[in-house]
Amino acid sequence: MDDAGVRKRREVGVVHIAELAGVSASTVSKVIHGRTGVSTGTRRRVEALIREHGYRKAEKSEAVPIVEVVFQALDSPWALEIVRGIEHAVRPHGLAVTLTEMDGAHTPESTWARQMLARRPVGVIAVSTMFTAHQLAQLDSRAIPLVALDPTGEPSHPIVSVGAANWNGGLLATRHLIQLGHRRIGMLRGPDELLCCRARLDGYRAALDEFGIGYDPDLVRPAPLYFDGGRDTAAELLALPDRPTAIFASNDLQALGVYHAAGALGLGVPHDVSVVGFDDLPFTQWSDPPLTTVRQPLAQMGATAAEFVLALAGGQTVEHDRLELPTKLIVRGSTTAPPTSTRRPRPADPLTR
Amino acid sequence: MDDAGVRKRREVGVVHIAELAGVSASTVSKVIHGRTGVSTGTRRRVEALIREHGYRKAEKSEAVPIVEVVFQALDSPWALEIVRGIEHAVRPHGLAVTLTEMDGAHTPESTWARQMLARRPVGVIAVSTMFTAHQLAQLDSRAIPLVALDPTGEPSHPIVSVGAANWNGGLLATRHLIQLGHRRIGMLRGPDELLCCRARLDGYRAALDEFGIGYDPDLVRPAPLYFDGGRDTAAELLALPDRPTAIFASNDLQALGVYHAAGALGLGVPHDVSVVGFDDLPFTQWSDPPLTTVRQPLAQMGATAAEFVLALAGGQTVEHDRLELPTKLIVRGSTTAPPTSTRRPRPADPLTR
Repeated sequence: MDDAGVRKRREVGVVHIAELAGVSASTVSKVIHGRTGVSTGTRRRVEALIREHGYRKAEKSEAVPIVEVVFQALDSPWALEIVRGIEHAVRPHGLAVTLTEMDGAHTPESTWARQMLARRPVGVIAVSTMFTAHQLAQLDSRAIPLVALDPTGEPSHPIVSVGAANWNGGLLATRHLIQLGHRRIGMLRGPDELLCCRARLDGYRAALDEFGIGYDPDLVRPAPLYFDGGRDTAAELLALPDRPTAIFASNDLQALGVYHAAGALGLGVPHDVSVVGFDDLPFTQWSDPPLTTVRQPLAQMGATAAEFVLALAGGQTVEHDRLELPTKLIVRGSTTAPPTSTRRPRPADPLTR
Repeated sequence: MDDAGVRKRREVGVVHIAELAGVSASTVSKVIHGRTGVSTGTRRRVEALIREHGYRKAEKSEAVPIVEVVFQALDSPWALEIVRGIEHAVRPHGLAVTLTEMDGAHTPESTWARQMLARRPVGVIAVSTMFTAHQLAQLDSRAIPLVALDPTGEPSHPIVSVGAANWNGGLLATRHLIQLGHRRIGMLRGPDELLCCRARLDGYRAALDEFGIGYDPDLVRPAPLYFDGGRDTAAELLALPDRPTAIFASNDLQALGVYHAAGALGLGVPHDVSVVGFDDLPFTQWSDPPLTTVRQPLAQMGATAAEFVLALAGGQTVEHDRLELPTKLIVRGSTTAPPTSTRRPRPADPLTR
């Protein structure tokens, strides 16, 4: 298709929509390219007409060969693993990855959305981020597909999403600790608004139930998903009169914070307190002791989200609304049997009962 | 400026260049947008004419609001710090960061260059990567500014570049070890083709010279800038009959590898061997012991490169061809005096001689 072909079809589209909306072609063009100078009412009317009349085909051929990735925050090596996975998946298609960060906000602001639409990406991947209904409508009117990776909550619109088997990971981690003989197992839970963290907590509870161990809310405390959050909250848990003999952290950064809190109290990992993380970031194998953790295939999750975006952009449908890639327990040096003084009889394995 | 204005000027430009080159306007358009189907000879002729006749002005207004960042490799948290710095700097200008990775190659391949040109970025930042003369000419003909961050070698063309004071960092690290009493100081040098690594090595040598300590090439070994590289090469150094009492690594990942090599030989850090890294990646403060290292302001380096790109894209000139941001020694727990058995008289401080 040559330039003239694209231009001609585009002009027909703009003129048609402009007539229907009762505005100028220039106004329609502004809406399409996400520029300012259009009232909210006009913008929504034009977007509704575009959705209805399928301007999308002409627009699509003008997409810039980029896939937009929106991160809530870019402050962990976790983000880098995902970016790499996406980049490797889209590169053979001649596409590059465009990154933006929300500085920790869960919903992109309108300025960001306008700028992103002006970039005319092939598709968007939202990581730990959720769009407003209006932003979703804007994407939809421009036929820009959206895939969520670890969404912050149940989306109100049907959005394809990719994650890991977080519940199962929480179950595996906690079961491992119980099978080593632990009964008082602390948990650092992540932010409630992150579905992935909620699933890890529920996996922890399921493992306790499985072995008939009561849930003690005093041992389960919210902590930010960073080193400091893990350190400070673990310090609280380890200062309890009947302190836990093991702590399951919601991510690896928290787990390294637990190491630090234990060290500050003169407690050794794993002999005084066992620690399990979540993610399997590269450097956790180099910590002392190397961290027992739940591996999520972050690069593969990124690649899968990218493949979904490419399929949707190509007009294909995606079979599953939600795909969870498997997690795996990686046992290293940070977990062992509880200290003898607090050791209790090892509960029977429910599988052999 | 409205759409019609841009289009009109663009068409004049294309037609004019096409007449001069004796080719069709469509061919000129293909060259401008980096598409295939043009012979190398024609492409170069058209690019030369574009350079000569200043098509750039019309083209510039069509740039997509992205800054391209090309990494040699995206496999270290080091890369993430730089990306964040760039992203924070360009976001207030309504720009996003587009990332590509070269899988460790030092020069982007032609496919990548064509795709990148098709994205029409506002500017390009090349990290540990160097472009060919032809690729530089392609960027130049499209008025796309390029800034290098930690270039792989002396560029053959005048390119604005940003780095850290690597030589000074090497000097500070080595001087710190000498002042603790070390005389046999090993060094893991990075790849020769990286100027930043060469500067760190020269800083090491300068510190030895300063204190009248002879340079022992047997103690200075090349190692890849990764954990495994540090581990394997440190294992060689620590197996020497007269092993070094301290090792200066060219980056933090190597330094953590040195910890591992020491542990495997039953040697403790810092009491048997002191270790200094380079970068100050966030997790080095959580290692055991926390790592003494040379901090480079990675996010600030990224931000500075971004500011240079934006200035050049805005038609401004940049005062310096090369800007080095300061490095700083961060003393933590991985360095102390050498073991008594091998301790030698502390050399006089040259500043007080």
